[in-house]
Amino acid sequence: MTGAAPAVNGRPAPVLLEHGVLVVGTGLLGTSIGLALRRAGVEVRLRDRDPRALAEAERLGAGAADDPVHDPAGPPASIAVVAVPPAATGAVVTAVLAEGAAEYATDVASVKAMPVSQVAAAAAEPGRYVGGHPMAGREVSGAQNALVDLFEGRPWVLCPDSGTDPHAVTRALAVVRAAGAIPVTMPPAEHDAAVALVSHAPHVVAALMAGRMLEAPDHEVRLAGQGVTDVTRVAAGDPALWTEILASNSAAVAEVLRRLRGDLDRVLEALESDAGPVLSELLAAGANGRARLPGKHGEPHVEYATIAVVVDDRPGQLAALFADAGAAGVNIEDVRIEHSPGQPMGTVELDVRPEAGGELVAGLRKRGWTVHE
Amino acid sequence: MTGAAPAVNGRPAPVLLEHGVLVVGTGLLGTSIGLALRRAGVEVRLRDRDPRALAEAERLGAGAADDPVHDPAGPPASIAVVAVPPAATGAVVTAVLAEGAAEYATDVASVKAMPVSQVAAAAAEPGRYVGGHPMAGREVSGAQNALVDLFEGRPWVLCPDSGTDPHAVTRALAVVRAAGAIPVTMPPAEHDAAVALVSHAPHVVAALMAGRMLEAPDHEVRLAGQGVTDVTRVAAGDPALWTEILASNSAAVAEVLRRLRGDLDRVLEALESDAGPVLSELLAAGANGRARLPGKHGEPHVEYATIAVVVDDRPGQLAALFADAGAAGVNIEDVRIEHSPGQPMGTVELDVRPEAGGELVAGLRKRGWTVHE
Repeated sequence: MTGAAPAVNGRPAPVLLEHGVLVVGTGLLGTSIGLALRRAGVEVRLRDRDPRALAEAERLGAGAADDPVHDPAGPPASIAVVAVPPAATGAVVTAVLAEGAAEYATDVASVKAMPVSQVAAAAAEPGRYVGGHPMAGREVSGAQNALVDLFEGRPWVLCPDSGTDPHAVTRALAVVRAAGAIPVTMPPAEHDAAVALVSHAPHVVAALMAGRMLEAPDHEVRLAGQGVTDVTRVAAGDPALWTEILASNSAAVAEVLRRLRGDLDRVLEALESDAGPVLSELLAAGANGRARLPGKHGEPHVEYATIAVVVDDRPGQLAALFADAGAAGVNIEDVRIEHSPGQPMGTVELDVRPEAGGELVAGLRKRGWTVHE
Repeated sequence: MTGAAPAVNGRPAPVLLEHGVLVVGTGLLGTSIGLALRRAGVEVRLRDRDPRALAEAERLGAGAADDPVHDPAGPPASIAVVAVPPAATGAVVTAVLAEGAAEYATDVASVKAMPVSQVAAAAAEPGRYVGGHPMAGREVSGAQNALVDLFEGRPWVLCPDSGTDPHAVTRALAVVRAAGAIPVTMPPAEHDAAVALVSHAPHVVAALMAGRMLEAPDHEVRLAGQGVTDVTRVAAGDPALWTEILASNSAAVAEVLRRLRGDLDRVLEALESDAGPVLSELLAAGANGRARLPGKHGEPHVEYATIAVVVDDRPGQLAALFADAGAAGVNIEDVRIEHSPGQPMGTVELDVRPEAGGELVAGLRKRGWTVHE
């Protein structure tokens, strides 16, 4: 575990991850991350309290089982990715940092305010942790269902706050980039509101609709077609995991569901009183809301202002850039990093809301950066 | 429009439809039916009050525009398929039968109690109409989105009642079979409860969830992934059409949604009081309900008892068989008709609930049918 990780598939391993990544938890996400990191040439050590899950992840090529008892102690991993259930995340991150098994840590829990506050309360150096959440998953779980390209092109949220060490962010960004995902930064509370809207509340709605099938006679259920199959697809997800997710984000989920219940009451009233215009209005709102979703059937993504910043392609530069952007008080919506192989310089493209673009450019220039709009 | 329809693709046209089919309404469903019937060698006449929709359907090859003013009067069509919006269906069926443009009529409206009762109240011979509903559709509408294989392998419900002329059923069955769909019979009220469960309520749920996206900030919506995209997909459907559908089936839809609201209230209460077990229970019910849906991710279809009946392959036989099955008091869940080319005999397979199988066999044998279990 010394020196740069070997190149895999002819690609050099990211320098920021030169001491490898420790993946804690080899379920679907942890194993998929291991596979993606290995493909990117990163050395990966794996831990799981279930020896069978660990063996399966190792067998699939997601990395090598971490064996601190028998292996001679090397340097700590460049970063740990904690991929355990949400309720355990804060404690495991704290323990990994305390043990010194990795210099920095991130996680993959689908809620962020809870682990961030848990680490802040318990860890000696909470700034070494940056919350993360890859927006990808499957209805099946376990190492055996891992996919090397699970994160390809998907948003991966990082939630730095004012106390986060910029190096934690740059290391986590290197993991995100190695996995082929699109990094997005936002504060933990904003993240939790967003996933309540686009993931947790839809899960509840799907489960409640699917639950209706249980009490229905066979001849009704067998008329089901693609529509209800789609509406209820996510309801197949693991109830225990989802109970934990919902409980960890209860306030934000309840907020979305309360508004939905308000509309549901209006639908019921309209159905009972033959009020067509109310139904029309709610269905039209649904069609319009649906059109806001990204993807081939929806609107194109919101247009952001893109600010290109020239950086030296070496550790520390990116951290300094993020620190300076944060000091300018601007939220980074999206980050793309262009490395020019063999060149000492690279370009970092930062997407920000259009109204914040001028402020960021001015702030970065004041701090000595070369910025292109 | 005299004599047998020409063979298309080398397949002989169904004898039961030898005077062609009149399709009234050349939207997505009517045009798709025309395309499927033409492929099966059936002569198709088309009507639509919108000349552009009619021209488009004709251009696509769904049939020939019906021109009673200029064409010499031929025999009435074997059956009319009325494919107009649900609210207009009863009146159009009544008018087509009164005009004598077709000997029998069926329709495609996604609710059945309403048009069946409207025709019963208004038509001189309501028995010439059998309600129908192909369980297929798209989020897009109009002739231009028609598909020749839209109904292939999909359930197509027919809703005969005690007053329905068996010939109406056999002609409608010939349409269903020509379109490649799987005929299912059930009473109108049972149909309406079933579609409330598997189509109308899921549509409302999808629309209400999608409506939440309207009020959310961009940075939340852009985290949307496959889950919420699936949950809300059907919400893209035409709000005006769906308002009409929901209003036409309001009692059955409200029944499903009231039960869903009961569960939603329990979820909200559980989220506010940290009641994990309640969440678990509801999510597990959702996962189990989801598993009941037919299709590759669900359970196999319910097992039905299959009764094979030998029939002469000529008009009248099938009608008599249905009349006798009805007289035996058994609901037919599914029908498959095996024609042996060049043979004077065929086999009709009737699926019934296991407990009703013995009764049906006894009843049919008593009435002189050759029955294999």
